[in-house]
Amino acid sequence: MKSLQGIFSAIVTPFDSSGQLDIEALKANFSLWNKTGLAGYLVLGSTGEVVHLDEKEKLTVLAAARESIPAHMPMIVGTGMHSTDATVAFTKLAAQCAADYALVVTPHYFKSSMTPAALTNYYYKVADTSPIPVLLYSVPQFTGIALSPELIAKLAEHPNIVGIKDSSGDMRVLIQTISLVKPEFSVLTGSAPILYPALIIGAQGAILAVGNFAAKLCYEIFQAFCSQQAETARNQQLKLLTLSEQIASRYGVGGIKYAMDILGYRGGTVRSPLLMPDQTAQTAIQAMLNSFQS
Amino acid sequence: MKSLQGIFSAIVTPFDSSGQLDIEALKANFSLWNKTGLAGYLVLGSTGEVVHLDEKEKLTVLAAARESIPAHMPMIVGTGMHSTDATVAFTKLAAQCAADYALVVTPHYFKSSMTPAALTNYYYKVADTSPIPVLLYSVPQFTGIALSPELIAKLAEHPNIVGIKDSSGDMRVLIQTISLVKPEFSVLTGSAPILYPALIIGAQGAILAVGNFAAKLCYEIFQAFCSQQAETARNQQLKLLTLSEQIASRYGVGGIKYAMDILGYRGGTVRSPLLMPDQTAQTAIQAMLNSFQS
Amino acid sequence: MKSLQGIFSAIVTPFDSSGQLDIEALKANFSLWNKTGLAGYLVLGSTGEVVHLDEKEKLTVLAAARESIPAHMPMIVGTGMHSTDATVAFTKLAAQCAADYALVVTPHYFKSSMTPAALTNYYYKVADTSPIPVLLYSVPQFTGIALSPELIAKLAEHPNIVGIKDSSGDMRVLIQTISLVKPEFSVLTGSAPILYPALIIGAQGAILAVGNFAAKLCYEIFQAFCSQQAETARNQQLKLLTLSEQIASRYGVGGIKYAMDILGYRGGTVRSPLLMPDQTAQTAIQAMLNSFQS
Amino acid sequence: MKSLQGIFSAIVTPFDSSGQLDIEALKANFSLWNKTGLAGYLVLGSTGEVVHLDEKEKLTVLAAARESIPAHMPMIVGTGMHSTDATVAFTKLAAQCAADYALVVTPHYFKSSMTPAALTNYYYKVADTSPIPVLLYSVPQFTGIALSPELIAKLAEHPNIVGIKDSSGDMRVLIQTISLVKPEFSVLTGSAPILYPALIIGAQGAILAVGNFAAKLCYEIFQAFCSQQAETARNQQLKLLTLSEQIASRYGVGGIKYAMDILGYRGGTVRSPLLMPDQTAQTAIQAMLNSFQS
Repeated sequence: MKSLQGIFSAIVTPFDSSGQLDIEALKANFSLWNKTGLAGYLVLGSTGEVVHLDEKEKLTVLAAARESIPAHMPMIVGTGMHSTDATVAFTKLAAQCAADYALVVTPHYFKSSMTPAALTNYYYKVADTSPIPVLLYSVPQFTGIALSPELIAKLAEHPNIVGIKDSSGDMRVLIQTISLVKPEFSVLTGSAPILYPALIIGAQGAILAVGNFAAKLCYEIFQAFCSQQAETARNQQLKLLTLSEQIASRYGVGGIKYAMDILGYRGGTVRSPLLMPDQTAQTAIQAMLNSFQS
Repeated sequence: MKSLQGIFSAIVTPFDSSGQLDIEALKANFSLWNKTGLAGYLVLGSTGEVVHLDEKEKLTVLAAARESIPAHMPMIVGTGMHSTDATVAFTKLAAQCAADYALVVTPHYFKSSMTPAALTNYYYKVADTSPIPVLLYSVPQFTGIALSPELIAKLAEHPNIVGIKDSSGDMRVLIQTISLVKPEFSVLTGSAPILYPALIIGAQGAILAVGNFAAKLCYEIFQAFCSQQAETARNQQLKLLTLSEQIASRYGVGGIKYAMDILGYRGGTVRSPLLMPDQTAQTAIQAMLNSFQS
Repeated sequence: MKSLQGIFSAIVTPFDSSGQLDIEALKANFSLWNKTGLAGYLVLGSTGEVVHLDEKEKLTVLAAARESIPAHMPMIVGTGMHSTDATVAFTKLAAQCAADYALVVTPHYFKSSMTPAALTNYYYKVADTSPIPVLLYSVPQFTGIALSPELIAKLAEHPNIVGIKDSSGDMRVLIQTISLVKPEFSVLTGSAPILYPALIIGAQGAILAVGNFAAKLCYEIFQAFCSQQAETARNQQLKLLTLSEQIASRYGVGGIKYAMDILGYRGGTVRSPLLMPDQTAQTAIQAMLNSFQS
Repeated sequence: MKSLQGIFSAIVTPFDSSGQLDIEALKANFSLWNKTGLAGYLVLGSTGEVVHLDEKEKLTVLAAARESIPAHMPMIVGTGMHSTDATVAFTKLAAQCAADYALVVTPHYFKSSMTPAALTNYYYKVADTSPIPVLLYSVPQFTGIALSPELIAKLAEHPNIVGIKDSSGDMRVLIQTISLVKPEFSVLTGSAPILYPALIIGAQGAILAVGNFAAKLCYEIFQAFCSQQAETARNQQLKLLTLSEQIASRYGVGGIKYAMDILGYRGGTVRSPLLMPDQTAQTAIQAMLNSFQS
């Protein structure tokens, strides 16, 4: 099993100006990302606008991604759907596309019905049938559902559930999770603002949307952590926090894609109902990026 | 345009014990529902587990429903998808299946990006292209997004946006909405616990999940309101509140389907990750229904 | 025991420009309020800035209020403090000042410790020792704690707990409460936007902050309800909603006091950290009031 | 000005079995705490049940505390009241009792009125008149109000506002705050579960309720941080998280006092409406403490 350590990027799915998949742009991005120190990629995650793609498009993206991702680097694929059966089916498809891991978001439409019993039943069914190892995905800002450390620990007992992307940004959840799971369970944060403290406390790495345009900065923090350069890690973390809050959190996927375009990547456009940043937002993003490059 | 006044049922989609669509059960239910005083139906809504159906299944359900619904009664169809394009496409399909109205849930995955501007852009695009009139659908308990009265009023200016199902249960939103929109805009509550007060304050009707198993009670409240029998309306409303809270709210779609089975309908099972009520819950539902029939 | 039926005003405590109690202004207000159809008054409630008064000031206000309130009209006094002992002591003082009812807010600083057991223990101790009947007060927008219908019903079993002011504005809580308590338990809403529907469903009345400057409008709704003039009640309710949302909810106590000054009452100033409306807000309040008087 | 670096304990106020202040118990506790490596104390904070004390009791506690706290150790005193004038007055009293710092909680009863403008006005008035330096106190779990990093940075510009106790437990707020304020502004976390990551990212220390019964463990983490023993710090942090979540968070002040009694301190009882742990909770606390001592 390929290692889940280090910085992973939750990649965007580029669309051209007419809203169609832009696979050339995707490949161009990989040719740049592959030089940044990233440990691997999450394809078809939230930032990849997976909810805006139909199945055929998803398979096209997966094929192009796998072709562009070096064989030794893990390709994690977002495979969560609303129903258990749909998740099971798409996880199998992703495995056939040479995905290394399936990242499975908590089901969330019927929020009050998503009891620990329902979630356990769901994740066990998915993990039982998945040909590839499963990662949990807790992202309450999108789903309204946060996995508790106790439930994560219970789910981690399944032999085919091998890790979690926790995007809650709640350090207490992260620490408590680490204290409850076995050491080989991969705890990855999805929250750039807490990357360095997460590593310090025992997270093996992170899967980050800012990896699309600030992969090198993320990697520097990881390297500084590994080589115990606390001062560097701390300073770079403060920069990363600002970039993450002011671009990714404030302007969402559109903000990330716009920043990519400025920095030589090919972000392209978003699909409606998402909107690209308006003029004011564009100016703010440009200024933000300038301030970090000067 | 068929009238949107009175009680509509947000119907379940019955599945057999293997989880497959049970169209016979659906037809059997309609033969009972059609005798209850209901004004029409919502097909493929939240309670219909629309998120658990693929497109082919949706079209099968629509065909069977249209066949079972008397021609003079409106068939409202839930057509909201994550992307604007997907919503536009499925709304057209629904119109081809002789839907009378499209009910379009707020897009909600990227919650913080769903600004008034993004929602307006979305609904206008859908309404511009829809062959049938559009109803807004605000259901924060499932989506995390509540349409404000101000935004509803703005959206109501579009000639093809003709009403709203507001399931927030927030009477202030309902009253304020009614005070802001033109009289022909249909304000329907999706919250059974506030049916009678909603009517009193000017709502034209309701689209209710409890309509699956308590349509007659809902209709009695509507009739009592129309004939100004305040005491009857109030008493029946207290009953409806209890049924709604103790069955629909507490046990979700599984609770509704189990209650249907008890009462001679054919609820069938739910699709995972939803669970049917456990033994304790079944006993509670049975007791609750007994207490209302005695 | 004086009746708790009709519209009660949750009166402000006027301060002069130096921030001192302005008892003359208070008396002048009563001389106007007493002609509006109000059924009684809540003194030292949230709107009365009770948290900004020391004990001596509270007693001064109580004395002046009792003197100004006709003997047949109930004077309800807010007596809730943080500790049980402090609440017990001040409730006794209020009774000595001829209060008719004690309104006791949920204790709330240690929110997560305020379990049903803790709240029951609290309210029973207060009710056991209070010389006057006790009203519960649930106001989650200020306290972060909402009393559930089940807990209200349990507390209502105490012979000296005779009613509730529910300011949650949640109609479901109100209806469910009414369905659970004995008929002589007084359910009063504290939410002007839902006054008429609350009456329709069985509330005996309301205790309202907008009673400070719109007592007559509130009373008209109550009268229209009593005489079954549904159209009038509904129309006036829409007006009341707007006034309440645009003045009381948006600008708080300062907004209420400013509106009072415009309408011939003597609101005076607020105590810091509250602020009076700024110039923009003042203009908006003036325009809002003009639109209702023309 | 005495240094605000290291671990501070937010001390409890012991009451005897009749609910009266137990000053002997307080002094006995100090004689133990003073040997644990603590850098100083917060007196009359949330954990000190300041809301359950009258002014005379507060002054009694302050006198006893100052007598027991070595002269070189800072005594921080919670001085926030509901009104600005009351806070100003009590802050002066605290200074007269030889407090070194005033910790001023955000005013919070009128939550929606506590805009940045209102909070700035409040804190500047308090800081302008305070004879001693002021610390901000953000504790949303009790107040419903969280100070944002931007507002903290603005308030930090006042020369007499010298630090913050942030009990939100939100690492993003902490990091962003540190990135915005000048280096001499003291950022102290109030959240034991994130102590070590907070230090790593630049917090100068912490003010902790668990300091009442686990001061040594907190101090070990601080020492391990200072001497760059990452493994020790991490391991002790996991222990501290569990103690904090399972005793302080789960059972509140009563849990802390019960744990103190077990460990040789004199916690005593809590004041109503708080309750002491019931039998089940007592057993759990005892078991939790045993597991850490074996």
